[in-house]
Amino acid sequence: MLKKPNVVVIGGGTGTYTVLTGLKSYPVNLSVIVSMMDSGGSNRVLRDEFGILPTSDIRQCIVALASKNANGLIRNLFTYRYSQGTGIEGMTFGNLFMAALTDIYGSQEKAIKKTCKFLEVKGKIIPVTYDNSHLVARYENGAQVLGEHIIDEPSEKNGKSRIVELYLAPPAKANKKAIDAILKADLIVIGPGDLYTSLVCNLVVEGVSEAVRKSKAKKVYVVNLMTKYGQTNNFSAKDHLKVIESYLGQEVINVCIVNKKINVPKTVLKRYEEENAELVKNDLKGNQKLQIISGDFHSDIVFEKHKGDKLKRSLIRHDSQKLAKAIMSIL
Amino acid sequence: MLKKPNVVVIGGGTGTYTVLTGLKSYPVNLSVIVSMMDSGGSNRVLRDEFGILPTSDIRQCIVALASKNANGLIRNLFTYRYSQGTGIEGMTFGNLFMAALTDIYGSQEKAIKKTCKFLEVKGKIIPVTYDNSHLVARYENGAQVLGEHIIDEPSEKNGKSRIVELYLAPPAKANKKAIDAILKADLIVIGPGDLYTSLVCNLVVEGVSEAVRKSKAKKVYVVNLMTKYGQTNNFSAKDHLKVIESYLGQEVINVCIVNKKINVPKTVLKRYEEENAELVKNDLKGNQKLQIISGDFHSDIVFEKHKGDKLKRSLIRHDSQKLAKAIMSIL
Repeated sequence: MLKKPNVVVIGGGTGTYTVLTGLKSYPVNLSVIVSMMDSGGSNRVLRDEFGILPTSDIRQCIVALASKNANGLIRNLFTYRYSQGTGIEGMTFGNLFMAALTDIYGSQEKAIKKTCKFLEVKGKIIPVTYDNSHLVARYENGAQVLGEHIIDEPSEKNGKSRIVELYLAPPAKANKKAIDAILKADLIVIGPGDLYTSLVCNLVVEGVSEAVRKSKAKKVYVVNLMTKYGQTNNFSAKDHLKVIESYLGQEVINVCIVNKKINVPKTVLKRYEEENAELVKNDLKGNQKLQIISGDFHSDIVFEKHKGDKLKRSLIRHDSQKLAKAIMSIL
Repeated sequence: MLKKPNVVVIGGGTGTYTVLTGLKSYPVNLSVIVSMMDSGGSNRVLRDEFGILPTSDIRQCIVALASKNANGLIRNLFTYRYSQGTGIEGMTFGNLFMAALTDIYGSQEKAIKKTCKFLEVKGKIIPVTYDNSHLVARYENGAQVLGEHIIDEPSEKNGKSRIVELYLAPPAKANKKAIDAILKADLIVIGPGDLYTSLVCNLVVEGVSEAVRKSKAKKVYVVNLMTKYGQTNNFSAKDHLKVIESYLGQEVINVCIVNKKINVPKTVLKRYEEENAELVKNDLKGNQKLQIISGDFHSDIVFEKHKGDKLKRSLIRHDSQKLAKAIMSIL
């Protein structure tokens, strides 16, 4: 019997959720390296009051990979945000769950492990670091901003500016398991996801970019469908790739998966316009070093926001099955 | 094949947890009718801020009967009380879990059902009522007190007095499923448990006592090991039984299970003394109508309080296996 290929997904957030959902039904050894820099609402409480790292990206991965989901019970619970209760309003169930387990088992690592075992999670969920660190964005206008959630929902001044540097304060060292997974990978998938707050935030963790460069894996970057205000204003596909490779320190991406032009319903496009977002223009051209897989990878479903959720969510997403098929075709 | 006997346990709290833990490995159709009047800390928030009924007794039953417990993960979680987090400190994980599920599924009944299914709970967990109602205790000294937790931890004045009446404000109607279970029972087990706040609180729900009287089941009362300050000061076994039967409206108990004298370690007895509690004297004598099963039913383990738990917990408990064996011998 052939050895199952090692596939490593790097990210966090909705894009990674989509990739994992698709890949989990394929015969691969799946690992996901997950961002730990979330600092918004519920995660702030987790950091400041419970002294543990944010787990919102972890729980999206858990939901995506859980075998035991009881008709969506786990998905419903882990994405649930309380809309009442003094001090509880705005918290997510998933974060309170992790806080309790971390206290019970004495470490966040053990808490995640126990949860994965209980929910019969397929694959490995690997926090990119266990160091307590925050994202800092330096903008073209000179401003420097600390905190993932402020970069995600920037002020008007910074939102219209451009991020010229993303770094961690204080610097964080990669989880050894993340490095091991990258080095042993046959395929590394970066994206889709918010360029700085879901993807680059992993690459700036000490050791990660170097490991990606060293790894003999094929490296795939999945380009986003839409630009994101404050992170990728007016960015084309090539602009996205350029940023990724600049943080990787070398032009190491072998394959880009790009969506063909979509016919987005006018009402949806209007809502994106309100958020200063637009379709990402595909200006990538393949060459000997870079393969472009261009096709129809978006979902026909228009996603809505969750009840009690104050964050902005993308309305147009990749289709997990189409995307997984494209990724698997590379192996 | 013989039909499995229907065994109905009435109670809530630690005593019921012990009975269920023991009975769940026997070939019986097990149902438990659970008190819904808890009003302390975490449950107050649940009632006042989430508008749902307290579930602390429900979750003890869930833990006792869960097949899927992942080496104690569920027990650990459901008994976990947060010791940090503004607005979260003092809350139990179990209550936050139920609050989230009730919001997601639209009713508490459905939330309980989904949880039981997910954790593969053996037997049926039946809330005694879905009406929002509070316990009121009237004391010999004339005082009337509203709220389960105030009766459970009384003022000095009331603690030394005697409860002459327990009732519900406003009156609550029994859950139809509770009545059905009682009427179809082959065996009804009441206790062990705090006399008023875990047992009688079920009997004062409209319809329950009548159903117990009508039921052709054998009726068993398991007498507590220790008296409880403010509820059963200086009570003998006979005193306990008298109260139970007065609320049942008739002398319908067929069997009493009473523990023989225990040799309690001095340090433990001293802690009980500090709480004005003592061993329950067995003064029950059997007759044609009443069978007394007297034996060694206590556990040799001395139980400790949970971390972050401000409530007083009993230190000496029944042994679940010994108790279950005694109960099964009646069938």
